[in-house]
Amino acid sequence: MLPQDRMGQRILFTPGPLTTTDTVREAMRVDIGSWDRDCITVTQEIRQGLVALVKGRTDLQCTPMQGSGTFAVEAVLGSAVPASGKLLVLSNGAYGKRMKLMADALRIPCVFLEDPEDQPHRPGRLDAVLKKDSEITHVACVHCETTTGLLNPIRDLGHVVSQHQRHFIVDAISTFGAYSMGSGEEIDFDVGPIDHLILSANKGLEGVPGCAFVLSSSQAIQQTKGIARSLSMDLHDQWNYMEQCGRFRFTPPTHVLLAMRQALRELVEEGGIEKREARYRANHRVLVDGMRHLGFEPLIAPDYQSHIITAFLEPDGSFEFEEFYEYLHRVGFIVYPGKLTDVPTFRIANIGSIDTSEIQGLLQAIKTYCELR
Amino acid sequence: MLPQDRMGQRILFTPGPLTTTDTVREAMRVDIGSWDRDCITVTQEIRQGLVALVKGRTDLQCTPMQGSGTFAVEAVLGSAVPASGKLLVLSNGAYGKRMKLMADALRIPCVFLEDPEDQPHRPGRLDAVLKKDSEITHVACVHCETTTGLLNPIRDLGHVVSQHQRHFIVDAISTFGAYSMGSGEEIDFDVGPIDHLILSANKGLEGVPGCAFVLSSSQAIQQTKGIARSLSMDLHDQWNYMEQCGRFRFTPPTHVLLAMRQALRELVEEGGIEKREARYRANHRVLVDGMRHLGFEPLIAPDYQSHIITAFLEPDGSFEFEEFYEYLHRVGFIVYPGKLTDVPTFRIANIGSIDTSEIQGLLQAIKTYCELR
Repeated sequence: MLPQDRMGQRILFTPGPLTTTDTVREAMRVDIGSWDRDCITVTQEIRQGLVALVKGRTDLQCTPMQGSGTFAVEAVLGSAVPASGKLLVLSNGAYGKRMKLMADALRIPCVFLEDPEDQPHRPGRLDAVLKKDSEITHVACVHCETTTGLLNPIRDLGHVVSQHQRHFIVDAISTFGAYSMGSGEEIDFDVGPIDHLILSANKGLEGVPGCAFVLSSSQAIQQTKGIARSLSMDLHDQWNYMEQCGRFRFTPPTHVLLAMRQALRELVEEGGIEKREARYRANHRVLVDGMRHLGFEPLIAPDYQSHIITAFLEPDGSFEFEEFYEYLHRVGFIVYPGKLTDVPTFRIANIGSIDTSEIQGLLQAIKTYCELR
Repeated sequence: MLPQDRMGQRILFTPGPLTTTDTVREAMRVDIGSWDRDCITVTQEIRQGLVALVKGRTDLQCTPMQGSGTFAVEAVLGSAVPASGKLLVLSNGAYGKRMKLMADALRIPCVFLEDPEDQPHRPGRLDAVLKKDSEITHVACVHCETTTGLLNPIRDLGHVVSQHQRHFIVDAISTFGAYSMGSGEEIDFDVGPIDHLILSANKGLEGVPGCAFVLSSSQAIQQTKGIARSLSMDLHDQWNYMEQCGRFRFTPPTHVLLAMRQALRELVEEGGIEKREARYRANHRVLVDGMRHLGFEPLIAPDYQSHIITAFLEPDGSFEFEEFYEYLHRVGFIVYPGKLTDVPTFRIANIGSIDTSEIQGLLQAIKTYCELR
């Protein structure tokens, strides 16, 4: 029952890893040496390509980090906040909570400011906290909480952080590539000054998982020198070594990098982030309209809802996510479970190498499931 | 001038990433969901497959760790040595030194015992140190120092550690898959008790880089609870979560895992580690004999020389490694630079999906280069 055109693959409606193009995966069919210039060239093209995506800023420094996005977030927290510093973590979901867990593991003094899982952070509240606690040196927050699909106003939050002359760290793992930048839009290095922006290969950039990236201002990356609580996740050491000789300090995931380079080329071919954003927006619109029509309501209010991933409320007591998941899996679609503490939800992402025809296919399958049960 | 049968690829004579089979790379042509049972199944097959490679032991616990081997080594050091503990690092090369750097970054009290880069660690000396310093709780050492290709006697060292009732951590990143186990040979969990053995996907197991693994005794993994200085590299948390639900805590490199599963299947098809060891030994013999014939002498005495990677002394003052490297690169072969502090060397590894015909091809190219220059 799997769609023929995917050669046995299922289509992933997940927040990443996601469905990539055949050509991105085919780029992994080559073994390259990690010390060799082939790898240096690939790494350089990726680093320059990522910086080029942030319009109006050419001074950004890109540091790849092996592992998942979480590894890069921890590398930033552990390398940016000095022993004398204090971190404020804003949280309205699992990924905010995770930053608090990192700070605790790294023994970084940390203030944890929580908002309800369906509510974005309020700049006014942040302002009040920073006014009151002058010891806070760094503020960290998640752009899109994939727990719910909620989008936090990082531009306005960045303004507040900047007014108080603190450092701003943004987890843009799920949004980078999916939201246009440098044009007064959500992700903006200039308007809301960001010190470190964390992103991942396997989200809006549509690469495969195994590497994450940090975009830092030149000043911010310099300030990370000698702070890290880890060798592997020492952001400055990783960046500095790469600047010196173009290589990773420790074995890079060479095939993942080859896929990433191809994915970046395809992003440019698609027309850049603006075009990709438009595709994702269209996917999201068709998805939400269709789901509503089938009786599934989104958890998050439209104003705060990202066009990346949507949490839908389970419709009634008789809905069984496991059964729903199994049916969709059988017919070739993979959705995502909920991650909320209280309300029963499930999630559908609409990013990756898919367009509205795949969304329509999924909606048709969900319709059939609803009729059958 | 590239060999036709490699479809434009160069053959890697490097210690990993190395040359993999087409089928291992083709296994990456599928996108799977990280939460989905497809990924759980793949992860389980890999974990069970790795444990099954250690003969005579079924109680070992396998914990995959995202990133390179270095990430897994740091995860073990940071999760195994408690705040009240003290680590002894044995070193005769770059990878021993790196463990010392990790201990420093993690603020773990550490004694550093160095041997010359061309000499293996002596069990008698270790015995004396452990007798004298009763505060040492953990001993860490590298099985094969790829800096030189030197093999350390981890079985005898393990005996000493065991007699003193300390914990033993072995970096077997470059040897696992290349040396048979459980038969009184070099890597032996029973004879020389090992608490944690660290290995990587992209060495003797012939997978692609992006994931490493830790094999721990059941008792040792339990003892890591609550010790870690990191969230991402918390060995116990990673293992425990995986035991509970079969998933990674944080996004795994799904394509790298698919390649790893295929590589493990191909290792079994080849006839297991014994057969692979025999192939590598034959490769090594042909390589060293041929290089000697061309006037290149190995740095390490035969008794301590691994059959994985060999450091060759640069023949005379007029030898230019860069030129040598460029020539070989042009004709389709990738060798490895030296990493020694004093003596000028370069390195050639003979692992990966290659046999003596590829070694002969390389030797022929080196012969031609020597005649041309």
